[in-house]
Amino acid sequence: MSDNEFESSLLENAVNQLSRLPGIGRKTALRLALHLLRQEMSVGLSLGQSIIDLCNGIRYCSICHNISETEICPVCSDPVRDHTMICVVETVKDVMSIERTGQYHGVYHVLGGVISPMDGIGPDALEISSLIERIDSDGPDEVILALGSTMEGETTSFYIYRQIGTRKVKITQLARGLSVGNELEYTDELTLGRSILNRTVFSDSFNR
Amino acid sequence: MSDNEFESSLLENAVNQLSRLPGIGRKTALRLALHLLRQEMSVGLSLGQSIIDLCNGIRYCSICHNISETEICPVCSDPVRDHTMICVVETVKDVMSIERTGQYHGVYHVLGGVISPMDGIGPDALEISSLIERIDSDGPDEVILALGSTMEGETTSFYIYRQIGTRKVKITQLARGLSVGNELEYTDELTLGRSILNRTVFSDSFNR
Repeated sequence: MSDNEFESSLLENAVNQLSRLPGIGRKTALRLALHLLRQEMSVGLSLGQSIIDLCNGIRYCSICHNISETEICPVCSDPVRDHTMICVVETVKDVMSIERTGQYHGVYHVLGGVISPMDGIGPDALEISSLIERIDSDGPDEVILALGSTMEGETTSFYIYRQIGTRKVKITQLARGLSVGNELEYTDELTLGRSILNRTVFSDSFNR
Repeated sequence: MSDNEFESSLLENAVNQLSRLPGIGRKTALRLALHLLRQEMSVGLSLGQSIIDLCNGIRYCSICHNISETEICPVCSDPVRDHTMICVVETVKDVMSIERTGQYHGVYHVLGGVISPMDGIGPDALEISSLIERIDSDGPDEVILALGSTMEGETTSFYIYRQIGTRKVKITQLARGLSVGNELEYTDELTLGRSILNRTVFSDSFNR
């Protein structure tokens, strides 16, 4: 018996690599590896190849920093989209979420995170200076700060607001209020308070 | 915007492949893929390659059906191991578990599962006939039925016991009893009953 935990350096290596993924410990990694070995060989080969292709083929859009297979992503290169509105989001996933709503037709700017001193993430680690440059060069009409309603999200929004300073651009943020389908009874005080302050004219809700 | 859920066929493909893994849904698969894209490219490339190498390089030992990088696994080809004892286990993982105890120096036979009519697994789906052939050709002194103490495990043990029939070989099974470190109060009746019936001479515990 070798010293190797699994008696196979191939298995050992695959388990090591799989357990580097977030939320996957060594036990789960071993379970996944043994699962692959029980399948047709093509299953594992396709999985491995798809990961290699992903890492080789995906880059970040040089304009909005969303993931893209091309230098400029499909959104930024789409002439039909409204390039006078820039929606600032935290992550690539947020772009997907907003796209799924079908309510937004402008372009994006992915920060790559939010300011979080606790995690050692300062403004310089994010795509904030490139956003300011983009505002200066493209002169958009509106910048939508679509960051989370968390301490870090609000801080980041405020930081960007200050950075934009006196530049002539409308700065908006996502509406805070009742979640659709929620009852008042189960809505927290802060949200309810905001939804009273930011109340909208009744007919608005039908004109969306 | 394309019809593609993620605007990228590479990402789509990687998510599809990852979500075929057990316990990984589409949301987790997307999280894993995006995690890989945030790392150095080499992280994803090594992961993909390790999975491909695993699936290309691992086969099943032609004698004991354990995973192996060679036609005959290191255990079966080790002259120091006791080839007169065959330990019958359900899965490759069970071999690893028993090896870790350091208490067993014989060889193995991996069934690849247990008889489970509910899951459509009959005796023919398992490596039972190859076990019988091996007993006939190698003439071992002892066959240890090291299957789980579940309904399916017991059924499978009994089935193998019947298949071995009148062949001249000692058939044993793993001891049932108190888990080491457990108190009587928290041991279930069946286990406690078995541990009384199968009690051992006191000094035995010191001679291990």
